[in-house]
Amino acid sequence: MKHWDTVAVVGVGLIGGSIGLDLLRGGLAQRVVGIGRRPASLKVALRRGCVSETTTNLEQGVAEAELVIVCTPVGRILTDILTAAPACMPGALITDVGSTKQSIVAGTRGKLPVGVTFVGSHPIAGSEKSGAAAALEGLFVKRTTVVTPTDETPEKAVLTIERFWKSLGSRVVRMTPEAHDEALAATSHVPHVVAAALAGATPAEILGLTAGGWLDSTRIAAADSQLWLEILTDNRRQVVAGLKKVEGRLAAFRKALDAGDDAALQTLLDEGRARREAARGKPKATVK
Amino acid sequence: MKHWDTVAVVGVGLIGGSIGLDLLRGGLAQRVVGIGRRPASLKVALRRGCVSETTTNLEQGVAEAELVIVCTPVGRILTDILTAAPACMPGALITDVGSTKQSIVAGTRGKLPVGVTFVGSHPIAGSEKSGAAAALEGLFVKRTTVVTPTDETPEKAVLTIERFWKSLGSRVVRMTPEAHDEALAATSHVPHVVAAALAGATPAEILGLTAGGWLDSTRIAAADSQLWLEILTDNRRQVVAGLKKVEGRLAAFRKALDAGDDAALQTLLDEGRARREAARGKPKATVK
Repeated sequence: MKHWDTVAVVGVGLIGGSIGLDLLRGGLAQRVVGIGRRPASLKVALRRGCVSETTTNLEQGVAEAELVIVCTPVGRILTDILTAAPACMPGALITDVGSTKQSIVAGTRGKLPVGVTFVGSHPIAGSEKSGAAAALEGLFVKRTTVVTPTDETPEKAVLTIERFWKSLGSRVVRMTPEAHDEALAATSHVPHVVAAALAGATPAEILGLTAGGWLDSTRIAAADSQLWLEILTDNRRQVVAGLKKVEGRLAAFRKALDAGDDAALQTLLDEGRARREAARGKPKATVK
Repeated sequence: MKHWDTVAVVGVGLIGGSIGLDLLRGGLAQRVVGIGRRPASLKVALRRGCVSETTTNLEQGVAEAELVIVCTPVGRILTDILTAAPACMPGALITDVGSTKQSIVAGTRGKLPVGVTFVGSHPIAGSEKSGAAAALEGLFVKRTTVVTPTDETPEKAVLTIERFWKSLGSRVVRMTPEAHDEALAATSHVPHVVAAALAGATPAEILGLTAGGWLDSTRIAAADSQLWLEILTDNRRQVVAGLKKVEGRLAAFRKALDAGDDAALQTLLDEGRARREAARGKPKATVK
């Protein structure tokens, strides 16, 4: 793997901080410039060794970087890319870690200076925790990162970004931004809504009787609401379609129960079990 | 705590096996008789130290026990209680560990010989694993056990059963069978259906893109379908009502997304998050 001289990480939270930790501890980069809006957060990232220097000035922070990784919340990624790009060196590569890809990729089209290339990425890793304090070395090991080039993205840039993720231990999958957003609606965005709905539907006075299943099923509902609002609204159409599918399946369960159709109920339970078991052999996309 | 001379455990799986382990290793019982239908399962329980002797004959197994704990699947508990009771010593206590309580408690009413008392229990502990091989010492420590007497249950028997669960480290809550089944529909049975629906609604070809949220949210869907069929059908009315609530909340999410009503979406997310956070301070009902 190419060793980087300077990498800029825009937004040094759980993901950005973990990338920086891997780059510095693994000797993959000489310098990692941490760029953020809040000096207190930057201080945490520096103290934890996630970055080697920090700045609150985006343009200055990216000026000497061959690679810029935008790790801000989904609702701010496009703006940060478009602000950073004119300040980048010729030949610089920009990628991101956003949980949605269509709007970000489309938004950069024709908007970047000549010599600066964007390749969308989504490392499927994280947790309900946030901030550089929660950053983990090896967060991406054996996880999956989706890289989403378009027909116009130079193949060389795509390969470099793919190699970058592989250097952090990630498995890489190449998809169109559209296919990514449809798949992630089903595997991540809809599950988030389901967890929040399940938690919200449970009366407060019986929370002491929750079982391990409830605690597991609702874990992700504890994540930052604002971040998830941005993800859900950015992938609105696909999430709505995915929710309809889950609602339909819940209604099928309810009708089978209500009608005393135990054979249908058994089939529905078996289908869920089989799908869950099938996922076990797959690479884990996220840490617990 | 009273030390038992002989305790009979009917059905030596994860729960029954864990009870036996605690009784024997903690010196709380001289003998634990493991009763089951399959000699192979009894052999595992014996080898693991969950029981001190075994038999496939229910009547013989309970004959010398002061305490009989029925740990068979929900669909078989009532039959096992009614079969065991006439073979019990005068003064014997019978309890169970079923995930539903109304039908079991009602089914024993007026059906037990004089001198034999039944008190329903539900230790809210377990995992998606099953069998004595998965039994754990201390499974009930800091978990909650619901004890469900009726107006006719002698207080002395209720207190003895409550002390029994406390001796295994469990917290004890007393509820009516009806209140239990309504609460557990919301905290356990409905979450199971939701997990199975979510898993079943995810296309097989994108399971490699599942995130930690999906894996957590669907974990319980991997549990034994037959066991859950029995639980769900035994608590049919409450589960149907609980599912309607979750479906309504999912529809509210979908409509807010579809209508671009981000304020409503934020409120729904915040409500789910607050309920999840509120559960953190509660005693955990189940092992991970």
